[in-house]
Amino acid sequence: MDFLTWMDTIQQRTESALEAALPAPDLAPARLHDAMRYAVLGGGKRVRPLLCHAAGAIFDVDSKVLDAPAIAVELIHAYSLVHDDLPCMDDDDLRRGKPSCHVQFDEATALLVGDALQTLAFQTLSTRLAGIAAARQVDMLHLLALASGSRGMAGGQAIDLAAVGQQLTIGELEYMHIHKTGALIRAAVLLGAHCGEAAPDALEHLRHFANRIGLLFQVVDDILDAEASTATLGKTAGKDAAQNKPTYVNILGAREAKTMASKLRQDAHDALAPFGDSARRLHELADFIVERTF
Amino acid sequence: MDFLTWMDTIQQRTESALEAALPAPDLAPARLHDAMRYAVLGGGKRVRPLLCHAAGAIFDVDSKVLDAPAIAVELIHAYSLVHDDLPCMDDDDLRRGKPSCHVQFDEATALLVGDALQTLAFQTLSTRLAGIAAARQVDMLHLLALASGSRGMAGGQAIDLAAVGQQLTIGELEYMHIHKTGALIRAAVLLGAHCGEAAPDALEHLRHFANRIGLLFQVVDDILDAEASTATLGKTAGKDAAQNKPTYVNILGAREAKTMASKLRQDAHDALAPFGDSARRLHELADFIVERTF
Repeated sequence: MDFLTWMDTIQQRTESALEAALPAPDLAPARLHDAMRYAVLGGGKRVRPLLCHAAGAIFDVDSKVLDAPAIAVELIHAYSLVHDDLPCMDDDDLRRGKPSCHVQFDEATALLVGDALQTLAFQTLSTRLAGIAAARQVDMLHLLALASGSRGMAGGQAIDLAAVGQQLTIGELEYMHIHKTGALIRAAVLLGAHCGEAAPDALEHLRHFANRIGLLFQVVDDILDAEASTATLGKTAGKDAAQNKPTYVNILGAREAKTMASKLRQDAHDALAPFGDSARRLHELADFIVERTF
Repeated sequence: MDFLTWMDTIQQRTESALEAALPAPDLAPARLHDAMRYAVLGGGKRVRPLLCHAAGAIFDVDSKVLDAPAIAVELIHAYSLVHDDLPCMDDDDLRRGKPSCHVQFDEATALLVGDALQTLAFQTLSTRLAGIAAARQVDMLHLLALASGSRGMAGGQAIDLAAVGQQLTIGELEYMHIHKTGALIRAAVLLGAHCGEAAPDALEHLRHFANRIGLLFQVVDDILDAEASTATLGKTAGKDAAQNKPTYVNILGAREAKTMASKLRQDAHDALAPFGDSARRLHELADFIVERTF
């Protein structure tokens, strides 16, 4: 199967799994469920589920087993976008080419949507999973929580808030992104590997890979934000500059940021070397992330 | 040990456990961690942890084992209060006798505090617990998620939002509270029982007890809101009436609401009969909840 076909297959099964995990739109409270579905379905590249499935593929894990952790990570990501768009945070009216959740519904509903999507992530990952030992599942839940909380993604958001209007060094910017986007991307990769009962040294290689990919993803995002149009992005372009947020493009310039992306891709590929061809999908995903820009 | 001494002991150990579970205030991002601690520590009656410990006591569970589920439930409760107080929800400036989290810090921080406290609840309950089988622990995590999400507490909040300014029947009001406060109270009791490997029929009795206690708690809360002063409550009194929210006192009148509370207490006591004296603490807690008012 070529990469694009594989990607399409995983995106489709992710959409189905999300659709099945989300409460039906006619179930009470219907407005909340409707808004939860609006925020999650029919959009997004599903990068985190793709990473989870690609990491699981190294260990020949059945896709059925990977669906739960893959969508759990995606639900955490989706909740963070809904809360991030709220007026008291980034105040963004556009997301995935549609009105943001609080614009389409209202602020109170969007707040509850984010809250309930986070819960749904843990609900999904705590459904007893066939083929995963319970002790391993507890560890996976713990890993997801650590990646999402105040020392992971939510902490990264807090650092991001504090950084608006500040001059950051490249090291400080990296620290922010390792938390804000990196933690969840790392969780996606490691959860996939945990489903395959990966040994500690394999987890270590994948952790290194994921750290590179997390930064790569952010550098590319900054380049896109600076260069692409709102129509292409499906979210407001140029908003980082408008909000005076530090980005790789601001600090390094566009050319240097692209060089950094190439270097990160190479590092990511190198980290996969021990797995040989079994890591093909992860290898291709690294390329795919970069090729969004160049 | 008399009831008040027991209660004080559990409240103190809950405070210590929360203190230990919360990130240190000097750990980055310090402002977020400071705000999380502000929102959780040094206040609250810890009703849910008390219920969890009292339910565990029926099965002679060591208090050390009960701390994790007890504070996990309390962290969910604390997150819900922080988000509930936000301007887009109840817009309340006072909580537990202090400025609400978004007043003391800012809205964006309060949003992240609630998000990170929810995550911390699942992080705490997914720490491997000595004396609990991993499969049981996965089920406990699932139970907490179901109680907190769109079909539990968060769903109850959504129903509550939709009910502002509406005329509700007593049945509709009960439906709202079974979700908004009842689900988490039920989870507190059942998690304590799960730690004692309670059999299905015991869980059924406790579920019935918890449902009565959940409603009892709300009826008493409505009576207090109508009759007590802001100083006594430590939160804004009379706000339900001011916000035109349906309450038991509005619908039934104060006298009838008190009769309902007495009846619910009796039902709750009856549900504990099969456990004899081992359920003494739960029995006393039902009394304690009622005696806040009369």
